[in-house]
Amino acid sequence: MMQQRLKSVALENVRIHDVFWDKYIDLVEDVILPFQWELINDRVEGAEKSYCIQNFRIVNEKRKEPHMGMVFQDTDVAKWLEAVAYSLAKKPNAKLEELADQAISLIEGAQCEDGYLNTYYTITGKERWSDLLEGHELYTAGHMIEAAVAYYEATGKEKFLRVVSRFADYMCDVFGSEEGKNHGYPGHPEVELALVKLYHTTGEERYLALADHFVRSRGEQPCYFEKEDCVREGNYIFPEFADFRMDYLQAHMPLREQKTAEGHAVRAVYLYSAMADLAGEYRDEELLKQCGELWENITQRRMYITGGIGSAAFGERFTCDYDLPNNTNYSESCATIGLAMFSNRMFQITRDGKYMDTVEQALYNTLLAGIAMDGRHFFYVNPLEVIPEVAENNPTMRHVKTERQKWFGVACCPPNISRTLASMGNYICAAGENTIYSNLFISSEISAELECGTVGIRLAADYPSKGEILYGFTGEEAKTFTLAMRRPGYCSRCTVKVNREEVFPREEKGYLYLNRTWMPGDQVELSLDVPFRFVHCNPRVHENIGRIALMKGPRVYCLEEADNGKYLRSVMVSPDAEITEEYREDLLGGTLCAAFQGKRIDYSQVSEVLYGDERPAYTEDTFTAVPYCEWNNRGKGEMIVWMRECL
Amino acid sequence: MMQQRLKSVALENVRIHDVFWDKYIDLVEDVILPFQWELINDRVEGAEKSYCIQNFRIVNEKRKEPHMGMVFQDTDVAKWLEAVAYSLAKKPNAKLEELADQAISLIEGAQCEDGYLNTYYTITGKERWSDLLEGHELYTAGHMIEAAVAYYEATGKEKFLRVVSRFADYMCDVFGSEEGKNHGYPGHPEVELALVKLYHTTGEERYLALADHFVRSRGEQPCYFEKEDCVREGNYIFPEFADFRMDYLQAHMPLREQKTAEGHAVRAVYLYSAMADLAGEYRDEELLKQCGELWENITQRRMYITGGIGSAAFGERFTCDYDLPNNTNYSESCATIGLAMFSNRMFQITRDGKYMDTVEQALYNTLLAGIAMDGRHFFYVNPLEVIPEVAENNPTMRHVKTERQKWFGVACCPPNISRTLASMGNYICAAGENTIYSNLFISSEISAELECGTVGIRLAADYPSKGEILYGFTGEEAKTFTLAMRRPGYCSRCTVKVNREEVFPREEKGYLYLNRTWMPGDQVELSLDVPFRFVHCNPRVHENIGRIALMKGPRVYCLEEADNGKYLRSVMVSPDAEITEEYREDLLGGTLCAAFQGKRIDYSQVSEVLYGDERPAYTEDTFTAVPYCEWNNRGKGEMIVWMRECL
Repeated sequence: MMQQRLKSVALENVRIHDVFWDKYIDLVEDVILPFQWELINDRVEGAEKSYCIQNFRIVNEKRKEPHMGMVFQDTDVAKWLEAVAYSLAKKPNAKLEELADQAISLIEGAQCEDGYLNTYYTITGKERWSDLLEGHELYTAGHMIEAAVAYYEATGKEKFLRVVSRFADYMCDVFGSEEGKNHGYPGHPEVELALVKLYHTTGEERYLALADHFVRSRGEQPCYFEKEDCVREGNYIFPEFADFRMDYLQAHMPLREQKTAEGHAVRAVYLYSAMADLAGEYRDEELLKQCGELWENITQRRMYITGGIGSAAFGERFTCDYDLPNNTNYSESCATIGLAMFSNRMFQITRDGKYMDTVEQALYNTLLAGIAMDGRHFFYVNPLEVIPEVAENNPTMRHVKTERQKWFGVACCPPNISRTLASMGNYICAAGENTIYSNLFISSEISAELECGTVGIRLAADYPSKGEILYGFTGEEAKTFTLAMRRPGYCSRCTVKVNREEVFPREEKGYLYLNRTWMPGDQVELSLDVPFRFVHCNPRVHENIGRIALMKGPRVYCLEEADNGKYLRSVMVSPDAEITEEYREDLLGGTLCAAFQGKRIDYSQVSEVLYGDERPAYTEDTFTAVPYCEWNNRGKGEMIVWMRECL
Repeated sequence: MMQQRLKSVALENVRIHDVFWDKYIDLVEDVILPFQWELINDRVEGAEKSYCIQNFRIVNEKRKEPHMGMVFQDTDVAKWLEAVAYSLAKKPNAKLEELADQAISLIEGAQCEDGYLNTYYTITGKERWSDLLEGHELYTAGHMIEAAVAYYEATGKEKFLRVVSRFADYMCDVFGSEEGKNHGYPGHPEVELALVKLYHTTGEERYLALADHFVRSRGEQPCYFEKEDCVREGNYIFPEFADFRMDYLQAHMPLREQKTAEGHAVRAVYLYSAMADLAGEYRDEELLKQCGELWENITQRRMYITGGIGSAAFGERFTCDYDLPNNTNYSESCATIGLAMFSNRMFQITRDGKYMDTVEQALYNTLLAGIAMDGRHFFYVNPLEVIPEVAENNPTMRHVKTERQKWFGVACCPPNISRTLASMGNYICAAGENTIYSNLFISSEISAELECGTVGIRLAADYPSKGEILYGFTGEEAKTFTLAMRRPGYCSRCTVKVNREEVFPREEKGYLYLNRTWMPGDQVELSLDVPFRFVHCNPRVHENIGRIALMKGPRVYCLEEADNGKYLRSVMVSPDAEITEEYREDLLGGTLCAAFQGKRIDYSQVSEVLYGDERPAYTEDTFTAVPYCEWNNRGKGEMIVWMRECL
């Protein structure tokens, strides 16, 4: 029997003040959101133009001017508004809220009489819904809805919510399995999970039903897109579509038959997130089982150790089991975010900690690697091994950037990273019945609504640098409820103390359950064993045979040229090597490094001969590893995650 | 002081009857040439159409029909005619000659009044020479000229030679550095080396001068193609050109300043071949030095151990020094042929055996790997490592085929392979003054014109399976001349006997020089030490760090799944492992295999966990390696050249 789905604790009730995460989250409010507003208004000198606000003005003012930017350019403002909403939920900001209200008025003014909302189709006059494969109308609608729901939840203002509800009502009229309705579904999933959110906020069941319809009809044969494709006659908005097959769109077979993660990685995990939502809403055990199978396929066959997904750049896609090349992969930041979204939903439905382990792996590594410490440069693509000279000269790697890039005109990842950072609270804890789940060990003050009433917890941690997690109960009176603390899958030993006395809580699916009557001032100490450890990869992954990686907790470490010189592919280390932890104030704004002994080729002795009988000489050396998420903050250089293993 | 350039011995004077090469060469005459004729006449059922002969008929018959196929489709018949010519030079074949004469009549009939010849531009009426970047007119002209020269040399018939001479005369009027002439040069080099051949056959110095003009003006700034590009306004025949820079065309700087091999690999080595020709013709020491530098850059920094070149598929191009990925590379068969052409010219000019070592490496490995043992299937792309499941599912490798392909409508490699096999005699030996150079140890009967008169040699070898090379002098009378035998660079020990008595010939730049008066029946035994050997790669090649390859003589060996099962990336071998030679009648039509002990991961014990603390267990095993050139003749399967080295 499926349990009731857990709920995230509302953002305004999770106040983060964490030494590690604050610097990233502050960047969103201090740097990214103001900058992004300037950017979508085309006021950033030297930056590619967005045209996003301009398009809305053209529609508002009924100007006869062309639409500029991509078909999905409206999402620029939607993603900004969503992040602004999360930010406002945590901390009022009158200036930001005023800008948001301006933007929302422009959006309202661009809505058609019948509820339709999309500047590209409105300005160009192209036929609505005629190109679901590429037109991104439903994708754009989805981001508008997510933003509006977030804005309503944060501010209580209804205007934006009314706009997207009218739009959703209109979509309910247009789409459906009934005769005479449009039988299509989105080329890029997103609206499905947005409609579920809208249903939760408004209580309108038709929105849930539309999401369900989009998901259920996906991939039914004959495939909708293949019929649509005939009309297109080879004229693609995105020329590479000519080379894509239906698996790119997860439409190669009826959705319920899909058991492996295929195609465009972002599309896939957005879709799976919606599937999980629907499994939870409809208590659909079969759909949930399928979601679990897809999730296992990803995380046990097709996911990088950094939580990255998408092994190939062409199609930004999944390829096949155990194909995880380290230097030609895509591993888009957005795909990792989608994986965290999917995993978080699966956790909330099943209360199984393995899903949260993956959320943590994705957020602590690839999500954070996407953003530079200056908050102004971003990776879209996240390889696990970079040799700059090769990446810059071999066009096989032309998608790989050797330094983080400025925000682009078409920017999916930076705003996605910022909305995720702004909503970290959603991942930190969740609540259901009379239990609060502590998922991520990020210092914060949490106030959750349980059956017993409002519960206050102060979480203090310096994780994963240290494994000591301290929970303090705030509030004024005793409360009886359950604290469920995640015990990460990597953690082989842990202890729990309540008010300094060791206790032995019940453990189930990766959670330690402590049920008691908590008094104000009670303390729980969770001590996780978080040593540095060398990790092996399943040797079915051809690329990692004979290689090991270094981790501490969920955090992957890497070697950088800045600390270790060139030719990192030659470095060999024994999995039994002793590791010295060292907190380095001088590095990367202060970071916990790992030092260990190993071997490397002595290049000073290498001749110019390309092929011959010369055996390279090895020399002992000490190596310094830094967190993968902090790589490339000291200029261009080699980086490697998977090191050769001394056998 | 530069010596006189050596000359290849005429094809009709090198009669090959070699147990190893015969099977490939016979395929050309027995299978490929007849099949190719049917193909260019669009009579092969199930094959993509060529339209080549059809285009010529349309022009001949002044039909109002569209040109079909690529802009360079005329080269299909030119390459066929060139191979036919080489075949006829060696062995008369009235049927083939009649077909060739038919084709030549069609070509003659398609020539314009003023000498211009190109069905694409004639039929479409597009402006001649308006698109040197992509139009391939000069490239097509070059193949016509090469074919005509070969046909004249083989048959003495002048018709085709007259046609191309008229065309060349016309090109001499059109192109040149003078005011009022077209200052362009070919987007795809080829006509340059063809014009040198035409000059040799006709004695017309203006052809040599035109070749020199094309080469010398290449890359002069401002770049001709960049000016031409402005007119094009983004409409490319080949859309990928939009992403290419001038280095793709070796036009990024004045040619004389180019010291590294850049851009499209076939274009590069065809150009360098012409440069070497011109260096020889004009006794241009500086140009020769530059050719030598380019050659060193290729062979010591950018060449696969198989003689393949072109590290990236996008652009089919060179990338940077030491970038030699094994599974994403292009290594086009045509590029290897071009490298053999360039190296052979460098040898003929310098008499340095290192150039012939590379010819041998290219021909024994990548050239032959390009053709299946049935003569009906071909590789264009030649990776050194293939895992079929990955290559078929990861679009990063979409250029890699896991099985040889049928001849395509647009087929550069198969006809190039066949013309090279048909003209192997050009590489086997060369002559200059009173010396005959023995380059490739392929059993054959050679009759060469030296200063002392006609010299006959019978060469017998089973090389590189065995290192015993036997030279017998034929003819009726004593002759005083020098026999120069190549001592391959890999060969650390060799002995020479004349009539069973050991002698110690002078050695210079890789050749053993034996000067004496030879009597009919005299014998020379050259014994080369050709053991199986493990080869190391310069560890600046990141991809091959900690890996070794197995060779015998010039022949690279590989592991195939058919002999060794899956997961070949896990195989480890010590460079000191003992190797057992075994001639296997049952394998690949009879081949010399190598067996050795090594280790591999025991996959039967591997769990399903993707990342964890499980250390793979290794097990001892015996491995069988087969020649790389014979891989993939037993169905689809894994293949690997560079194996992990046990340290």
